[in-house]
Amino acid sequence: MTVPESGLPEDAFDALCTVLGQAHVHTGRDDRLGRAGGLSYLDLLRHRGFGEPAVPDAVVAPGDPDEVLRVVEVCAAHDVGIVPFGGGTSVVGGVAALRGDKAAVVVVDLYRLDRLVSVDPVSRLAVFQAGVTGPEAERLLAAHGLTLGHVPQSFERATIGGFAATRSSGQASAGYGRFEDMVEGVRIATPRGDWRLGAAPASAAGPDLRQLVVGSEGAFGVVTEVTVRVRELPTIRRYEGFVLDGWDAGVTAVRTLAQRRVLADVTRLSDPYETDVAFAMSGGWKTALVRRYLRLRKVHEPCLLVLGWEATSKEELAARRHATLRALAGSRPVSLGTPAGESWRHGRFAGPRQRDALLDKGVCVETLETAAYWARLGELRTAVRDALVGSLSAPGRTPVVACHISHAYETGASLYFTVLVPRDADDPETQWRRAKAAACAAIGPLGTITHHHAVGVDHAPYLAAEIGTLGVDVLASVKRTLDPDGVCNPGKLLG
Amino acid sequence: MTVPESGLPEDAFDALCTVLGQAHVHTGRDDRLGRAGGLSYLDLLRHRGFGEPAVPDAVVAPGDPDEVLRVVEVCAAHDVGIVPFGGGTSVVGGVAALRGDKAAVVVVDLYRLDRLVSVDPVSRLAVFQAGVTGPEAERLLAAHGLTLGHVPQSFERATIGGFAATRSSGQASAGYGRFEDMVEGVRIATPRGDWRLGAAPASAAGPDLRQLVVGSEGAFGVVTEVTVRVRELPTIRRYEGFVLDGWDAGVTAVRTLAQRRVLADVTRLSDPYETDVAFAMSGGWKTALVRRYLRLRKVHEPCLLVLGWEATSKEELAARRHATLRALAGSRPVSLGTPAGESWRHGRFAGPRQRDALLDKGVCVETLETAAYWARLGELRTAVRDALVGSLSAPGRTPVVACHISHAYETGASLYFTVLVPRDADDPETQWRRAKAAACAAIGPLGTITHHHAVGVDHAPYLAAEIGTLGVDVLASVKRTLDPDGVCNPGKLLG
Repeated sequence: MTVPESGLPEDAFDALCTVLGQAHVHTGRDDRLGRAGGLSYLDLLRHRGFGEPAVPDAVVAPGDPDEVLRVVEVCAAHDVGIVPFGGGTSVVGGVAALRGDKAAVVVVDLYRLDRLVSVDPVSRLAVFQAGVTGPEAERLLAAHGLTLGHVPQSFERATIGGFAATRSSGQASAGYGRFEDMVEGVRIATPRGDWRLGAAPASAAGPDLRQLVVGSEGAFGVVTEVTVRVRELPTIRRYEGFVLDGWDAGVTAVRTLAQRRVLADVTRLSDPYETDVAFAMSGGWKTALVRRYLRLRKVHEPCLLVLGWEATSKEELAARRHATLRALAGSRPVSLGTPAGESWRHGRFAGPRQRDALLDKGVCVETLETAAYWARLGELRTAVRDALVGSLSAPGRTPVVACHISHAYETGASLYFTVLVPRDADDPETQWRRAKAAACAAIGPLGTITHHHAVGVDHAPYLAAEIGTLGVDVLASVKRTLDPDGVCNPGKLLG
Repeated sequence: MTVPESGLPEDAFDALCTVLGQAHVHTGRDDRLGRAGGLSYLDLLRHRGFGEPAVPDAVVAPGDPDEVLRVVEVCAAHDVGIVPFGGGTSVVGGVAALRGDKAAVVVVDLYRLDRLVSVDPVSRLAVFQAGVTGPEAERLLAAHGLTLGHVPQSFERATIGGFAATRSSGQASAGYGRFEDMVEGVRIATPRGDWRLGAAPASAAGPDLRQLVVGSEGAFGVVTEVTVRVRELPTIRRYEGFVLDGWDAGVTAVRTLAQRRVLADVTRLSDPYETDVAFAMSGGWKTALVRRYLRLRKVHEPCLLVLGWEATSKEELAARRHATLRALAGSRPVSLGTPAGESWRHGRFAGPRQRDALLDKGVCVETLETAAYWARLGELRTAVRDALVGSLSAPGRTPVVACHISHAYETGASLYFTVLVPRDADDPETQWRRAKAAACAAIGPLGTITHHHAVGVDHAPYLAAEIGTLGVDVLASVKRTLDPDGVCNPGKLLG
């Protein structure tokens, strides 16, 4: 693969070395290639020889929030673009090293911001530096008997700063909330200086500006610290599988749980297609027997429902489980027991690895997600499914499109689609772009363009339709205020 | 009281009449005086002859969101200020008819925007026009078996649009959430045009701009419609009174309920001073006997705790009450039974009327509220109390300062102070300003300047300390984008 020479101007390089020491300013080929993009389908294609990844001119590794601020100031002074980089798990091009109108772009790798700065066990608050990964955050909190409870599929690599920058949502969002619900305070290094927000758990002192920083995807500056709400570490858990008959019955069941506010901490409903794949793939229990059993129980179109509760006492778990199952009873669930639940839990972070393996075998494998209000959810699923099948089908080539609800709210839910289809050997990028455009067009009138993957590059063309041209103008004005020279993550969020 | 002539330019008057018809453009003395400010202490003083209220040049009453938009456009074109007016219950000067740098200012009275536009019972969504009052919203929803559950003390007069514009929080916020938690979508008439937000229950499509409009206090435009999450109408309720021994024990109890996520829908803890007032004032139960009973039960410093549950079935209520009381047991509560709870519920909206009566008798009566993380809450209460007592005490004049928690979160809680002191007959405004400044200085390093009363005029000087000068710059840039001529609610939020 061709890696262009670093185009970082010498004076910028010198200034960065002055701030960080030369040991933390990397311009070598491998360092730069290793930070060239994230895990989007196009990123992965490019690292497999289809097209060229956008390679940064340097990778810098500041050691604390103050050094990040000085890096941002140096880059702004030298008109060099900045790409904040945590786990590099963006699936929408959020960490692509785009130059925009800049001569050079620097990746700010936050791995050295790895500290739990403070814990307030009374208020249940923890201050993390931005580069702490999911597992490390949990390990650091567990020493205090606490947990964050944020477990997106990217958990193993993604970071606290990235969770905040992208409005991440974890698999246990029904119990612990979305990441934005956990953010009590945030610190961001902008070209205009350090900005700290978060004085109290709730406030009426004007708009909630924390919610303007959460989801800003590095376009306003680099998130350097996040104050999060934490909870007592659960000591007991129970994950169970159930089957409901048909998608509509499944949706009604999850909606009932959400609206009666008795959701399990993990609540995940697969559609018949995804259930079929799960039954076929799961080695843990015997596929044929399960199908026979479900026919006996008169389930015609099985939809797998995984429910998981976590608690600090048996009594709490029993009471919450009882409330969930009581509300579920009307939907006539068929229990598959805890092995089916534990089987899901065991494989919960395996998606990205499976994807890599399939990509290596020439499969186009992509996921996309959206959310909508309950009344539109059925139509949305059908519309996106039809768009994907329509745009990806070809003679001898029929895509598999599976879907699940992984995040439920009182007023609606997310839909997460997994698509598998033989890769177009000649032009896989066009194949993907056609499907992406079709899916986004289907989503437009019914839901949000992204429930938890953020905007990045891939969704930027669709943002204006969702938040209005006034919304885009508002975001652009905020960016001009905090980043007057436009050095912060060029080409992301606002395109 | 002197009411100045209307200074509305003739061409602006004509243009407003063209949009609304002359019947809805009011320039008479009484109409204008009746919309001159809200219910802040200074507003109430001015209507009692201390100082002059800011009287608008006209009051206009558009009939729907489109007419509001046209009014906003006309005012922007004629460089006339706009003050949105719902129930007029702002206690921080939020509806004062300030001119700023404009020659004239018009109050936009939203009382004709009184419709429930639509209900989606599946998604549990309702779209309200901005002028619908609290009771009317509940009446309209009850016909569908639904409720909003938002009951601030201003409930009887305040409006849906005002709730959104000010980040209102109701007495049942522990169960139903703050108003911002209920807002799924919002429509705002800005000088740059109509802006609608809200595509899904949750989204990662950039920052949550709904949370930028919620709390914008009319500074970006006029909120004309709000889409709110609604719930099934409760069919059963239970309000109970308890007493805990001492403020610290009370705070620990409420914190435990919040962190175990078993708060009652209404959870309200009075400090010993407020408890003393409550015991003395409450006619419903016999004060002396209560005190004797509590001494027998070895309660030395009683703090009243009101807990209220609302549910759709006996079983749900029993289960939730059981979970609350189980978590409360360690705090050794002494039950006062349901009459004490119902007594509070009965008088829950009486505050403003009692205040009017006391003001008429020459008492300076004011409330102020803040919020902080749990670890700072004790210090915050002491600091604000000391500031109020110190700034208001004079020979023969000792203020009564009572405090309660009315909104609790996992990480902290609100504190609501009520202050009574003989009014300074010569210069009541300076007396108030001295106390306000002292209280705000005490709050600054510990909590938020306002938990649910908004910024308005009174808190504007303290906003920058809380959100930073960058925060103020960001809000100012958003305002410039949406309201380039600065006609929207001059002098509020950003001062």
